Amino acid sequence: MSLSLNQWTTRRWSVAEAVDGCVRHGLAAVGLWREKVAEQGLAETVRLVREAGLRVSSLCRGGFLTAGGLPGEEDRHAFARALDDNRRAIDEAAELAAACLVMVVGGLPGVRAGAPLPASGLSREPAAGGSAPCPPGFSRDLAGARERVAEALGVLAPYAGERGVRLALEPLHPVYCPDRAVLSTLGQALDLCQAYPPEQVGVVVDTFHVWWDPRLSDDLARARGRIAAYQVCDYLHPLPADVLLGRGMMGDGVIDFGPITRAVAGAGYTGDVEVEIFNADVWAADPNDVVATMKARYAALVPAG
Amino acid sequence: MSLSLNQWTTRRWSVAEAVDGCVRHGLAAVGLWREKVAEQGLAETVRLVREAGLRVSSLCRGGFLTAGGLPGEEDRHAFARALDDNRRAIDEAAELAAACLVMVVGGLPGVRAGAPLPASGLSREPAAGGSAPCPPGFSRDLAGARERVAEALGVLAPYAGERGVRLALEPLHPVYCPDRAVLSTLGQALDLCQAYPPEQVGVVVDTFHVWWDPRLSDDLARARGRIAAYQVCDYLHPLPADVLLGRGMMGDGVIDFGPITRAVAGAGYTGDVEVEIFNADVWAADPNDVVATMKARYAALVPAG
Repeated sequence: MSLSLNQWTTRRWSVAEAVDGCVRHGLAAVGLWREKVAEQGLAETVRLVREAGLRVSSLCRGGFLTAGGLPGEEDRHAFARALDDNRRAIDEAAELAAACLVMVVGGLPGVRAGAPLPASGLSREPAAGGSAPCPPGFSRDLAGARERVAEALGVLAPYAGERGVRLALEPLHPVYCPDRAVLSTLGQALDLCQAYPPEQVGVVVDTFHVWWDPRLSDDLARARGRIAAYQVCDYLHPLPADVLLGRGMMGDGVIDFGPITRAVAGAGYTGDVEVEIFNADVWAADPNDVVATMKARYAALVPAG
Repeated sequence: MSLSLNQWTTRRWSVAEAVDGCVRHGLAAVGLWREKVAEQGLAETVRLVREAGLRVSSLCRGGFLTAGGLPGEEDRHAFARALDDNRRAIDEAAELAAACLVMVVGGLPGVRAGAPLPASGLSREPAAGGSAPCPPGFSRDLAGARERVAEALGVLAPYAGERGVRLALEPLHPVYCPDRAVLSTLGQALDLCQAYPPEQVGVVVDTFHVWWDPRLSDDLARARGRIAAYQVCDYLHPLPADVLLGRGMMGDGVIDFGPITRAVAGAGYTGDVEVEIFNADVWAADPNDVVATMKARYAALVPAG
């Protein structure tokens, strides 16, 4: 395994700056984000990473496939639009020869990330007789949302397979279940993979998302051949008010990287190890300092694979 | 199943006020907290609930059994003190004829609830050669903490059994894994139960903590005979800055109470259903209004068992 910079860790850097930073700091791989690639231009990004001799350890991200749980024409169109956008993401991953396309599958339909829920129509005193509350502007049908992800995968996995792209299903910490990912555990992600060849669909193991899981050791053992990406960062305590920014530099939180990394290696993973940190302090720091700290902490705290 | 008021929902009320409130609002059961019982006096509490004809659906709470993961004499004493305190909690539950003693098992040793982590001793630039960081004032050994819980249960379960008290292991949402409970899923709680008779050790199913779990349906099916308490409240989105207070009145969050409640009933549970809400707005409201809203929302949104 070797260290890769996920470019969201140095969010202020463009693709060109991140590629340059990786070369200067002696890293052999970079994880890219679609927004940044679009800003740089896809063809120019391909040229930059090739000329730098970097591997693209992942492209972030596809997903958000749970639309369709609400009544009305608009929501059905949203599901179709999501599939189209994912096909474009797969095409981009193919152009970039990315090791995988990271899939964040989406939360409950109609629940927006970090935003208040749409009004539920519930008064404090429901009408006499316990009549049903007004339909809310979002769906509480978690099982339905999970079925929609499986349905979308049935469309996207063959499309990815034809283009030599590996989809990487990322289970997110359950705290993100309402708004970002109804895929909540590694076991659930592995179950979803089973219908597809390993080179078409794999999983992302991200320490922040999975460190708490009592089944982690067992599920990593059965993940052999399915780990498409391994991401490390720490889990801060307490979480900041915006829980999305609770990811920290290794050593600043509660995660012991030894057992998880050894289990990932034990499952046969030999790919790159991305550090992906969403954190206001990290984003405010000089990106060169961030990369230097990342390298030092990685060397000190993450066992060699 | 019938509705029970967990007294922390009406936190301003003393035991006497909560008992009176239950009677006035036609509830047949109350969930009590040790702090409140101590303020009222144990004997007086026993007299109040008996004279009111109320069932005690649970006593909250025992647990916090993960001390002992840190070097030093003090930490070993902390584990012994925790066992002593739990024996007292069991004695109180026996006096109150509580249906169970709720066990919140505790987080990583040395990690305080809601408080910053003790300094890790890591500098931004570890000493050359990747020397090990200074030992932090807390433990990252999650597996060890979980073993400590199992060890403590081996001491406490027989003690509870001799006194006719049922311990109820409560899996908490993984967001509380660092500081409150290394017991994170219903499946993990059920596995811990297996060594003991069902009347000695069971589980708490709390919708807030388990709603996201992709294995919930399967684990509720295998929970037959092990469900000692069922608690309902909603999961707010987004969570407030203090995630402990993210519990909301049914209908104010993202949980669909239908499937979970039917599965709990399907597992044979016929006990009381407690509403336990930690929420600054609910605590600020008139407790009588809170109980009225709770009854109306329960009738509208939680299926009859």
